[in-house]
Amino acid sequence: MVPEQDFLTISTIWSQLAQRAEQDKSLHLADLFAADKTRFDRFSLECSGLLADFSKQRLTDEGCDLLVKLADERNLASWINALFSGEVVNSTEDRSAKHWFLREPADKAPLVHEQLGSMAAMVNRILHGHWRGVLGDAITDVVNVGVGGSDLGPLMAAFALQSSLPPEGLTRPRVHFASSMDGSQVSQVLQELNPRTTLFLVSSKSFTTVDTLHNANTARRWLARGLGLSPDDDSLLRCHFIGISASPERMTDWGIVSENQLLFWDWVGGRYSLWSAIGMPIALTVGMEGFREMLAGAHEMDQHCRSQPWEQNIPVMLALVDVWNINFLDIRARAVLPYDGRLKHLPAYLEQLEMESNGKSVSRAGDPVDYDTCPVIWGEVGPNAQHAFFQLLHQGTQAIACEFLMTARRYTEDVHSESLAELEGQHALSNANCLAQSRLLALGERALDPSLALPSYKRYHGNQPSTTLVLDELSPRVLGSLLAMYEHKVFVQAVIWGINPFDQWGVEMGKVIATDMLEVLTDPDSAAGLDSSSMALAQHIANKQGKRCG
Amino acid sequence: MVPEQDFLTISTIWSQLAQRAEQDKSLHLADLFAADKTRFDRFSLECSGLLADFSKQRLTDEGCDLLVKLADERNLASWINALFSGEVVNSTEDRSAKHWFLREPADKAPLVHEQLGSMAAMVNRILHGHWRGVLGDAITDVVNVGVGGSDLGPLMAAFALQSSLPPEGLTRPRVHFASSMDGSQVSQVLQELNPRTTLFLVSSKSFTTVDTLHNANTARRWLARGLGLSPDDDSLLRCHFIGISASPERMTDWGIVSENQLLFWDWVGGRYSLWSAIGMPIALTVGMEGFREMLAGAHEMDQHCRSQPWEQNIPVMLALVDVWNINFLDIRARAVLPYDGRLKHLPAYLEQLEMESNGKSVSRAGDPVDYDTCPVIWGEVGPNAQHAFFQLLHQGTQAIACEFLMTARRYTEDVHSESLAELEGQHALSNANCLAQSRLLALGERALDPSLALPSYKRYHGNQPSTTLVLDELSPRVLGSLLAMYEHKVFVQAVIWGINPFDQWGVEMGKVIATDMLEVLTDPDSAAGLDSSSMALAQHIANKQGKRCG
Repeated sequence: MVPEQDFLTISTIWSQLAQRAEQDKSLHLADLFAADKTRFDRFSLECSGLLADFSKQRLTDEGCDLLVKLADERNLASWINALFSGEVVNSTEDRSAKHWFLREPADKAPLVHEQLGSMAAMVNRILHGHWRGVLGDAITDVVNVGVGGSDLGPLMAAFALQSSLPPEGLTRPRVHFASSMDGSQVSQVLQELNPRTTLFLVSSKSFTTVDTLHNANTARRWLARGLGLSPDDDSLLRCHFIGISASPERMTDWGIVSENQLLFWDWVGGRYSLWSAIGMPIALTVGMEGFREMLAGAHEMDQHCRSQPWEQNIPVMLALVDVWNINFLDIRARAVLPYDGRLKHLPAYLEQLEMESNGKSVSRAGDPVDYDTCPVIWGEVGPNAQHAFFQLLHQGTQAIACEFLMTARRYTEDVHSESLAELEGQHALSNANCLAQSRLLALGERALDPSLALPSYKRYHGNQPSTTLVLDELSPRVLGSLLAMYEHKVFVQAVIWGINPFDQWGVEMGKVIATDMLEVLTDPDSAAGLDSSSMALAQHIANKQGKRCG
Repeated sequence: MVPEQDFLTISTIWSQLAQRAEQDKSLHLADLFAADKTRFDRFSLECSGLLADFSKQRLTDEGCDLLVKLADERNLASWINALFSGEVVNSTEDRSAKHWFLREPADKAPLVHEQLGSMAAMVNRILHGHWRGVLGDAITDVVNVGVGGSDLGPLMAAFALQSSLPPEGLTRPRVHFASSMDGSQVSQVLQELNPRTTLFLVSSKSFTTVDTLHNANTARRWLARGLGLSPDDDSLLRCHFIGISASPERMTDWGIVSENQLLFWDWVGGRYSLWSAIGMPIALTVGMEGFREMLAGAHEMDQHCRSQPWEQNIPVMLALVDVWNINFLDIRARAVLPYDGRLKHLPAYLEQLEMESNGKSVSRAGDPVDYDTCPVIWGEVGPNAQHAFFQLLHQGTQAIACEFLMTARRYTEDVHSESLAELEGQHALSNANCLAQSRLLALGERALDPSLALPSYKRYHGNQPSTTLVLDELSPRVLGSLLAMYEHKVFVQAVIWGINPFDQWGVEMGKVIATDMLEVLTDPDSAAGLDSSSMALAQHIANKQGKRCG
């Protein structure tokens, strides 16, 4: 066990950092760059197909040294060791957090590779066209029914990799995602797809997620109606449903036949589960070989994180920079800005990974914290965000940290050969815009001709800090490294803050109250004990539905 | 002209509001509701198919009265009058802002209705299958090529309304959106669509937007190759391109034939342009009648905003509540949470509308402001956000304002009749969750059995403020009202803050620098004068592309 930690803000290094921030607050990034031609060299790191450039953060060498000392003071080495030894790092749920174990080689993790083997068999049957619907048709469409961790990771990664060629000689099904409990996506699916050729993956760690079970039930009745079978028909279930869960019992209770059950484990948090069979939509996109490449890339980042000294360690440095921004520069939001549209769903994925993990205000010891933890994370494909909210980044009143992502190589796939010249030009244009925006945010109007006399509404003060991440290319392997990097970064931040990143008690109580509210919506008169707003809203909805005359 | 205003923070009402906030800061929403059974009645408004409930905002009657006085002090009535009289309210660009004029009836706005007529003719030709590709095929796919205001509005609204039935007897084409300059979407389109049956709408107010012109050029060459014609072939341009812009000259220069040009005007800001021909994808989804219904709903909200006293005026009250949260409760972010998946793109649309309009830090008089203006806006379909970032809303360290949206009636369309029972159940479930979350955020653990003794990590402090908006149904008309409500809300906030919401100078300089950077990427040696980060990143990309040996 890691020794008990002192409360963060009484640490001497913490107050030194606060002094440093006070002292440096008039520094401008334009001055830091002007004073030092080697700044990039000291504030950038490279590993596993990724370059991370921190040089546009509002950080000096002295600040950096203090942050590294803070990591030591917070026993970071012991915590990283505890994580990778499978200790109970998730104390409130009495669990280890072994998502990294899903990336270990076969000899170290036979249990994991057994499930990967079962998953491979299913994936290959589908990709070879051997998986058949109940009436004998090959499967053309796969619908992933899941939400949160069972949706965001697979969706993000499958989308990112879908412009690669399908695995040699295989036919990729179309992959759809139905997540939201209101039925928006599942109702689209019912309208557009053919029940004879549609396979559903029902993904839920607990297999009790209301959202997912409702969508799955709606799909099941639609299949039964469309195929003229009972919803309990064994061959309907066998041919059209795969279940992915940590609970085989509940899968069986729902109706998933045992051969169609893929398992993962209690020690994999939902938001860390795309490395398990939950990642099946990714494997259906890039094949099992591609999926294993993604695992290998993540494993490489695991090794990097475990072995590198803090100042050479990408996830650790990313975490420390964030702590600096949040706790010492009072920055409360970070924008994630991929300049590659294939990473469109990365912001939503990171919103969950970061805000669900570190959106906490109680220390491991149970005390309320007196410092900020996770900021608001949001984002958009960078060039599109330029036309949407960059105005606020450049000329708003709030300091906001930005994270730029670019790919060096792109459009190398055969599928683009006909339009290659145009698309390569578009890729270069996008990268040029990425460089332009990070430069302008950092330097402000000093990035331009300094002799210009601008009216105040045209001025750019700059000094908005950013990190730039360059991916060699968006391959399964580099994507794996990138995502593992974020996972470890989130963990390191939690260690500094002394909080548990692996629980999510803040989402439990809403589920309880929702059950009461469903009753209230059905019978608004049962709402008597509620606040006047909830009561009146329920009544209003009933009136508009014509259920009551008000 | 509206008389010159005093600087905001020297106003006596401003300091009274600050005192009020100080005095009320220990108030908890649970106490406000417990003390007053009529709270909802006094803090909710209804108009044009919308109910707005402010009662879960941390606001007392006294605070509310002061905010209304602030609106008077800031000459809100004169400003609303100036907006709707077509005065030059956008002073830095010397323009009026007459998006509301696009919603006026035919007798008041003949110019507008002339263009609507041209648009209707095109829309009807497409929906009747009479618009033909150059080889005589009916059009099956329409691709909207545009970005920012020429993308987010049409995308959001067309998506929101696409589950309605297509107009009687007509065939709706599939509508696609290609916005990002990196070619991500356009490269998908090239892979999946047939040039013979594909029509492109090229939408750009200036018709100089680099992102859009690159995508349009890539599409044009693809069409030419696929159809065996020259990219300058007159019938190719005539059959496969419609242009929508305020610049007929530039459309003509690019190659849009004059019969295929739809116009809008200088006095329509890009982010306010979905009411013009820029909204064509919406009309292709719901037909021209539906589009005109949307305009009528917006016009109704215009009338409401112009005529109602502040305390009865939905956009005004929404704006004042936001000012209270931002300037007096130090809340720097707002989450937009639609509990209806059809509004999935609303958060991205509002990110532009609000952050581009009010992400400003210079007053109309040219002075730097010493108070916060626009917060960070972000969001997600509510039930999905519950599984992603609600943890941070409930147990994080930051106060965040939430905006919940629900629809009272749904799944009334014939197209859902087979699965109606299941989908109605899902809709009720989603609404129940919406009510549960706003209640829990407001009351915290007091929403549950108060006798529970919870460990600290399970506690919910509550007191997170929210507004709930209930739409009678998601029809074109109600959607029109909703969007006009947001537009006016943004304007009212700008009036309070004394800033110009209609310019966007903060996005201009990046375009200039991007041109330089494109050169640097092509020849990294030309980067000599740049900061070490930009220089090294350009070099790194070149190395990874194998262009240099580094």
